[in-house]
Amino acid sequence: MEPTTLVDRHSVVPDLQRERQRASFRTSDLTVAIYGTYDLEKINRIRKLFSHNPKFRLSDLWWMPRSERYLRACERAEEFVRLCRQYKMSDEELTIMQLAVGEDFFLLLHLTMFLPCLQSLADDEQCDWWVPLARDFRIIGTYAQTELAHGSNVAGLETTADYDEGTEEWVLNTPSLSATKWWPGGLAKSCTHCICMARLKIRGKDYGPHPFFLQVRDLNTHEAIKGVTLFDIGQKLGYNGMDNGAMQLENVRIPRRHLLARYSSVDKQGNHKKIGNDKMMYGTMTYTRKQLVMGAGLHLAKACIIATRYSAVRRQFPSMEMDMDSATQADPAEAAAARMGGSESQVLDYSTQQLTIFPLMATAFAMHFTGLWTHALYNKMMAKARMENDFSLLPECHAVTSALKAATTLISADGMEACRKALGGHGFLNAAGVPLHFASFLPQATYEGDFVVLSIQTGRSLLKAVEHKMKGKSPPPPESTMRYIFDFDPVAFMGQQGEGEGGSEAGAVDWRDPQWQKQALEKRASVLIYGTAQDFMAATQKGHNSMRALDDVKIEMCRLTKAHAHVVLHRCFQDKIQELQSHTPPIDTNVIDVLKTLSDLYTLYWIDQTFGEFVLARVLKADHAMPLLQTIKQLLKEVRPNAVAIADSWNIPDNLLNSALGRYDGRVYEALYESTKYEPLNQTDVSEGYYRHIQYILHPERKGGSPQSRL
Amino acid sequence: MEPTTLVDRHSVVPDLQRERQRASFRTSDLTVAIYGTYDLEKINRIRKLFSHNPKFRLSDLWWMPRSERYLRACERAEEFVRLCRQYKMSDEELTIMQLAVGEDFFLLLHLTMFLPCLQSLADDEQCDWWVPLARDFRIIGTYAQTELAHGSNVAGLETTADYDEGTEEWVLNTPSLSATKWWPGGLAKSCTHCICMARLKIRGKDYGPHPFFLQVRDLNTHEAIKGVTLFDIGQKLGYNGMDNGAMQLENVRIPRRHLLARYSSVDKQGNHKKIGNDKMMYGTMTYTRKQLVMGAGLHLAKACIIATRYSAVRRQFPSMEMDMDSATQADPAEAAAARMGGSESQVLDYSTQQLTIFPLMATAFAMHFTGLWTHALYNKMMAKARMENDFSLLPECHAVTSALKAATTLISADGMEACRKALGGHGFLNAAGVPLHFASFLPQATYEGDFVVLSIQTGRSLLKAVEHKMKGKSPPPPESTMRYIFDFDPVAFMGQQGEGEGGSEAGAVDWRDPQWQKQALEKRASVLIYGTAQDFMAATQKGHNSMRALDDVKIEMCRLTKAHAHVVLHRCFQDKIQELQSHTPPIDTNVIDVLKTLSDLYTLYWIDQTFGEFVLARVLKADHAMPLLQTIKQLLKEVRPNAVAIADSWNIPDNLLNSALGRYDGRVYEALYESTKYEPLNQTDVSEGYYRHIQYILHPERKGGSPQSRL
Repeated sequence: MEPTTLVDRHSVVPDLQRERQRASFRTSDLTVAIYGTYDLEKINRIRKLFSHNPKFRLSDLWWMPRSERYLRACERAEEFVRLCRQYKMSDEELTIMQLAVGEDFFLLLHLTMFLPCLQSLADDEQCDWWVPLARDFRIIGTYAQTELAHGSNVAGLETTADYDEGTEEWVLNTPSLSATKWWPGGLAKSCTHCICMARLKIRGKDYGPHPFFLQVRDLNTHEAIKGVTLFDIGQKLGYNGMDNGAMQLENVRIPRRHLLARYSSVDKQGNHKKIGNDKMMYGTMTYTRKQLVMGAGLHLAKACIIATRYSAVRRQFPSMEMDMDSATQADPAEAAAARMGGSESQVLDYSTQQLTIFPLMATAFAMHFTGLWTHALYNKMMAKARMENDFSLLPECHAVTSALKAATTLISADGMEACRKALGGHGFLNAAGVPLHFASFLPQATYEGDFVVLSIQTGRSLLKAVEHKMKGKSPPPPESTMRYIFDFDPVAFMGQQGEGEGGSEAGAVDWRDPQWQKQALEKRASVLIYGTAQDFMAATQKGHNSMRALDDVKIEMCRLTKAHAHVVLHRCFQDKIQELQSHTPPIDTNVIDVLKTLSDLYTLYWIDQTFGEFVLARVLKADHAMPLLQTIKQLLKEVRPNAVAIADSWNIPDNLLNSALGRYDGRVYEALYESTKYEPLNQTDVSEGYYRHIQYILHPERKGGSPQSRL
Repeated sequence: MEPTTLVDRHSVVPDLQRERQRASFRTSDLTVAIYGTYDLEKINRIRKLFSHNPKFRLSDLWWMPRSERYLRACERAEEFVRLCRQYKMSDEELTIMQLAVGEDFFLLLHLTMFLPCLQSLADDEQCDWWVPLARDFRIIGTYAQTELAHGSNVAGLETTADYDEGTEEWVLNTPSLSATKWWPGGLAKSCTHCICMARLKIRGKDYGPHPFFLQVRDLNTHEAIKGVTLFDIGQKLGYNGMDNGAMQLENVRIPRRHLLARYSSVDKQGNHKKIGNDKMMYGTMTYTRKQLVMGAGLHLAKACIIATRYSAVRRQFPSMEMDMDSATQADPAEAAAARMGGSESQVLDYSTQQLTIFPLMATAFAMHFTGLWTHALYNKMMAKARMENDFSLLPECHAVTSALKAATTLISADGMEACRKALGGHGFLNAAGVPLHFASFLPQATYEGDFVVLSIQTGRSLLKAVEHKMKGKSPPPPESTMRYIFDFDPVAFMGQQGEGEGGSEAGAVDWRDPQWQKQALEKRASVLIYGTAQDFMAATQKGHNSMRALDDVKIEMCRLTKAHAHVVLHRCFQDKIQELQSHTPPIDTNVIDVLKTLSDLYTLYWIDQTFGEFVLARVLKADHAMPLLQTIKQLLKEVRPNAVAIADSWNIPDNLLNSALGRYDGRVYEALYESTKYEPLNQTDVSEGYYRHIQYILHPERKGGSPQSRL
């Protein structure tokens, strides 16, 4: 299936034509397997609104300076809202629209942070006041929590909201430079409002950080409200369409009822009251993390698609097939290509290139399917909580989104950079696409909890599971992602350790058996988790305070978080394959086979990456190293003929890939050449730099004499 | 020792004051150990020329748009040349000056590629014509080899130089779009000349790529020469001060003698002649790689310095010392800091943060010392070749610079990004410094041979060593970096394999014994090398052509390249420590101890990262995993009190770090705040984006009605 943007079939370069012809499956079938029929239709419908709209053409990101880029983001935002109003988009459609924009602009914060937080933190009356305005973009908001000196530790925030009983108002202040709100997207120049986290204080008593509804710009003039200072925090490695802002507050007064009051309220007399189950506060965090997990696979896929297509077009070094008559005769297309393409090999034929790209592509599938599962789990959790007041799924949902957010965003960020390197020199050009995707994705590995912070949260949950088991509590249900920890027998493992290097016999491993893979991943994770639990207990018994004891095992917690995440990723991939196998109407078995190969490759690649941990867990031993690598190399060979078709099946249009190297038609050199026409430096042959400076390098005698000028 | 830029001692924040007080050694002693007294004096002398010169202030890189940035690079270039002329700088001083600029601009290519290539590829007469002009910057050049569709495979270049016997001229052409020269730094707008690699053709016979001296711009007007089309290839992830260029040639005629003729010449009648030993062609490649190896340590160190200092100032989460009376009483400074700094811990106290930063800092030392050694080896090789016509060191020098360039640039690039992530959210700001250093360093991991290309070169050399041994040739001298391959006994190892999991007994390892480390690293590398040699032979015997057989073991070659590089890195680190131990005047033993700790940390960290390979090599087994990690954690604790002093000892001035977070005085929040003042978006409170677009989002009724304007 071709992407939504129209492509002239006849303009596709022969290398890619041939790649597509020799795939073992129909691309459209795999596309359906990736998205499901229902979502796919919606995606295509919405993309049509974007694909031919010049306002959403993304190639200007390759060359625009910051100020223009922000202007362009504003233009896209205006058009985005116009479409929303015209087509009365649903929430679901809005989510798809955001992905279809393909750029980071302030409305993303409005839609993914401000609106959901408002809906979950405001009480019913407040929702009635503000949600309709926000939904119709009559106000534009963001979420202001992080301060210049305070990030992950919310309890350490400095901004204050003092209650003035006389006027029934809150008086907001950022009492020091380090309290300056710093980072909120859109806060610099775009937003009219924000949810501001501030320490609620009544008569000097500090109740800790609470959310306030705060207007920051005048709705008529857009000027900053008196007492509010707003500015942009400066340019970043990426994400420069977004006006991340800083905010200082000096005695800014807002009404009492602007404290968002679903979980705590303050009456006129200044009595503070906690309301309901504030566990649901975790709900918002879980929501955001779930969203990030959902996107991680798709983001990595984009980089893999670009790398795959470019590697199929790029030729370098003499062909490996040159003197292999049998190979060329077997495949007439191959032989024709060998004649056409001259004497060089497609880079995609190199095993090293395959080892870089294919396992990451396989991982993108694992993460994408896991994202869909996380989304469903979240919805189930919320439904239970809202309808039945049953919060039993919350801890699991919190733990699993923490582990997955930590692992998937890191894998994606590092994987995108690996794909970029695999593009060779041209991968460094903005026009290659990956640099922009990479730079714009990077913050996701940091915000909403970076790898370490979330590993500690995950680690705590998993250690709690060990504790529950040790105390003889009943195990979680079989479908729980933490069930395997209960099923693990640490005593038996100790015995195995005693025997020295137990575990499977070398050669006896059936690498491609999903059941073996599952057990291997679970055992590795369990051994790390139980070992860490033991160390943590030992540290506590040594009399270390809890922060110190925790620090003693933080490094281990980072490792076990990855291990746990891979248990979940593997499971979700397998569940998806099973689901597709029993699909009505039936899915082409060739598609199932491709997914099985990708699942094997994903699993074995990551086992190989952390081979030592599997040795430690007595799952593998030295003699397994070579057979494992051989199996991975075999899998690369199996993926190879389908690689381009697999990339195509993600159904990402050229405009969203925004890459001269990843184009569907493979006309990479023409595209690179075209891309230079926009570059501001290319407006003149002789540059301003020559007149002002270079001429004095070449002709120092002109200094003070008669310089060459343009006139 | 404070950096060269003046710092007001009293403005240093207490956290850093305290860190510096508690170091076990004098910073200046370690600085001398890093650079040596002789180099250090030169470095400091030259830096003084730069540190107070506003033209070399680098903070404008945080916010400048591309066109301005190029202009600024031109301004710096002019000033650079002015200083060169004023002080008549030596080659050695020029190298230091380039590092002192801290930005990528066209003169770097002129000095590190054009001039050295000219000197080594031109014959004596040609050198007399052109070298003086180039040395005095009367011409500015670059090196034009890479084409749009041709990179690493030089033999595949398309650009042609046909000999016209009638006029005794070369006629240069880029015969297709894909032949366009693409990437040469400075070629777009700055250079007047280049060395252009083109296929030399005489009467239709193709002699393959040869270097030509080619003028590209008029020396008076700076306009492109007729037939030469020059343009900028567009913006990049970093490196945007550099005008990387593209060049198309259409029947450009140059004199016969503009073929650089040290290794081949063509007489008037068109007779082509090879001259002398063209092995020296490798000399240039080796030179460039050696330069990159020399820089890799310093580049990584910069990121580590920023991460270390910021982590000492940044506080997050409740202190680990809060309820530990003994700890605070033991150290009055600590207690004072606890009172001052409030209730949060220095991020540098977290083991996870230490595990990210300290091993990379240790690796920066290993790479820096190895760079110095490589430099000495190169000089020795060149001296032997030039004076004694003895090329015996060339293969070793070529192999070791390939392996080290591949490994160190990759470690440095990935390490810089790891340091950036360790800075949390603020690490994403350009003002953090690391984003710019990272983005500007990245190309080094690609150009002059990327990891895969160089791994194949390294792999071939190492496999050749195995072949030599098998054929009973005499071993290389003991000081050779490849000697250990000869000393390895593959038969004994096969026996060990038979025994199952042989090797050291768990617990019996003396992790911190350099001799054990050396043997472990050598054995791991040897096992990989011999295993790969075996696989390669098997593939060849299967009848695969050589390219295919090579591809069968490329993945393994990448692994063994890393393994071999670590053998060399470890050896250079140890040699340096031994050299310092016998230094006159004696070096403070505390400095030696710090270096020993760093060497242990470097070594054990990388062993842990590839634990599986040491298991495979029967060096380690499962039970070693935990003791190894414990040893690493112990080393982190030993480094911790000296961390800031170690960072300081690199003696990098604030201007070169160019980081609001890595400042010597630790005033990170003030600096971040200051950094926003330059941002173009902050010139007005209400932005152009509001007037043009946002107002119609908030007030759709204004569209066509009465929009708000600035007037």
